[in-house]
Amino acid sequence: MYPVETAAEARERERREVARACERFLQGDGLIRPRQALATLVEEVGEDEDADFYGEGELIASFEHEIAGLLGKEAAIFLPSGTMAQQIALRIWSERTGCVTFACHATCHLEESEEKGYAWLHSLHAKPVGNARTLITLDDLRQVREPIAALVLELPQRHLGGQLPAWEELTRQTAWTRTKHAYAHMDGARLWESAPFYDRAYAEIAALFDSVYVSFYKGIGGLAGAALAGPADFIAEAGIWRRRHGGTLIHLYPYVLAARAGLRRKLHRFPHYHQRALAVAAALRGVPGVAIKPDPPQTHMMHVYLRGDRARMEDAALAIAREEKAMLLRRLSPSDVPDTWMFELAIGDGADTFSDEEIAAYFRRIVEAGA
Amino acid sequence: MYPVETAAEARERERREVARACERFLQGDGLIRPRQALATLVEEVGEDEDADFYGEGELIASFEHEIAGLLGKEAAIFLPSGTMAQQIALRIWSERTGCVTFACHATCHLEESEEKGYAWLHSLHAKPVGNARTLITLDDLRQVREPIAALVLELPQRHLGGQLPAWEELTRQTAWTRTKHAYAHMDGARLWESAPFYDRAYAEIAALFDSVYVSFYKGIGGLAGAALAGPADFIAEAGIWRRRHGGTLIHLYPYVLAARAGLRRKLHRFPHYHQRALAVAAALRGVPGVAIKPDPPQTHMMHVYLRGDRARMEDAALAIAREEKAMLLRRLSPSDVPDTWMFELAIGDGADTFSDEEIAAYFRRIVEAGA
Repeated sequence: MYPVETAAEARERERREVARACERFLQGDGLIRPRQALATLVEEVGEDEDADFYGEGELIASFEHEIAGLLGKEAAIFLPSGTMAQQIALRIWSERTGCVTFACHATCHLEESEEKGYAWLHSLHAKPVGNARTLITLDDLRQVREPIAALVLELPQRHLGGQLPAWEELTRQTAWTRTKHAYAHMDGARLWESAPFYDRAYAEIAALFDSVYVSFYKGIGGLAGAALAGPADFIAEAGIWRRRHGGTLIHLYPYVLAARAGLRRKLHRFPHYHQRALAVAAALRGVPGVAIKPDPPQTHMMHVYLRGDRARMEDAALAIAREEKAMLLRRLSPSDVPDTWMFELAIGDGADTFSDEEIAAYFRRIVEAGA
Repeated sequence: MYPVETAAEARERERREVARACERFLQGDGLIRPRQALATLVEEVGEDEDADFYGEGELIASFEHEIAGLLGKEAAIFLPSGTMAQQIALRIWSERTGCVTFACHATCHLEESEEKGYAWLHSLHAKPVGNARTLITLDDLRQVREPIAALVLELPQRHLGGQLPAWEELTRQTAWTRTKHAYAHMDGARLWESAPFYDRAYAEIAALFDSVYVSFYKGIGGLAGAALAGPADFIAEAGIWRRRHGGTLIHLYPYVLAARAGLRRKLHRFPHYHQRALAVAAALRGVPGVAIKPDPPQTHMMHVYLRGDRARMEDAALAIAREEKAMLLRRLSPSDVPDTWMFELAIGDGADTFSDEEIAAYFRRIVEAGA
């Protein structure tokens, strides 16, 4: 039995239908349908390449080897999701230290987006450090009194618009974990996108950490999937946990192939996305009622704050999408500040289909509608 | 650094290379390479079909609806693996009953093939029931003294060659769970393959159980993936646990599409596979030194026991594969009985490329080599 559609559902359906008809997307790489994505995989895979089999085989092993090399770690393991990767990393560090607590930012993915699997499945405790509205500082860490198994640092901090600590601060924070006899774990969901800011090799950034999780479907544009990299014995143990989690699928190759193709196609593009993010931010900065965080953007992403009436601004964006087949934003979320709303903007190939002047004009129209 | 290849590894590599060159496979559906499998998915997916998004969307929801209907349950949820599906089912039933023990066959997948994730992740205890060499009986169940959250019954019992309890016995065993105030959970990894034995609708078999797990990559021929079906509130809760396990991937569509295509293509084939299994068993039965379990086969599968020298029989099979490009068996495993070795034979499309006489002749050659 299908329940009758509510007004909110009907509105959501309309949004989806308008979005489906759009030809340009300011966000990410635009709309890529399964048929197109799968056809790309058919081109990616060699005629004679064999399937992986429960985590074994040349196809997956060679990709894991490539990732380990890129991150300068002894070994790496491919997993279906970052959720699985990070819980596993923390569980292993917990058993190595005999300690069930990990320190993290209050907006950490583990804390906010995983139904607290770390607690329900692994009996771990999260210790939020510092202020939820700012990056963790060394001073914040020094106030951690209890023993911890690991410190999780997210590079960049997604829920702060993709902010990154300065290199020196980062080296001090990861060094601090040694004083606690704890491990440093990187949530590198968007590590690839951080290269322009640090202007260092990925391996040099990863060298500050004992374990690193990276993702393949965000900037990389894969289908799903993640990797965990670290010492060989740690990765071997992660394989046992991947099986326990139900992540050692008979075949992971659609995700591995998409990750492999995406890495080759996109890894060199992140400096461009960063430049494009700077230009988009500059265009938006000139529109009254618009603010950017961080300003200037440090990676490919930013948070955009709009002052005005939420529904009228959303409607204006929807009207632009309907009339001009150009999708600028789908939804606005609340901010702390009254009458100010925000959305996350991640720059990919889509932003190249807009000129800076066009972007400024569209957002002027949206903010004016909300005034 | 790649270590030097050992003699055993070289032999295994040779086996793989010979297998890759084979043109016929007695086991399953033969060799399907990623390129071919992915091309099939491109044909399966509609031009305008949208991707699923973190478990939501028409593509995945409609398939879950189809599976729920097929199994006569209120709801179903798609998951990356059966490992995830079954741990989740048992965790939920455990919380509903306030009891951490589940009863199962000693060769249960949860016990043998998941690195005991049920214990490490969910702090559950497995209570093996009955004899590892035979199906669970009602008498075995009556000897379970402790309270249990659930009884897991695997239909068919893979590690007994795919044996199934008679319908009346099955109804009594599932009814027994009520006397224990426990839930009945079906490990239906090969449920699709059991239809000819019971000659009942899947929904009628599933009706004996509170929750049912089914798989999409064994007989169905998908890429990976599973579904869990049951009451609506149970399935809603399973969604929370899927996220905790790291199984709510941004896109599951390659697996959903492969499952959908496989179900349409293969569901009606299982009576044929059963008939073919009966014929293959009859051919093998006539070869001295060969035994079948169960005899006659009750599903598409059987265990085949060969008497003789293991290495010489494996070599004979390898020689046939090399010379005639026909793969009969890759490896023999130990049995209880000295000088008797076994392999699992699951019938799919591959067996249709062999005549019964050919099969008998090949196995005569293999067993004679081992004499």
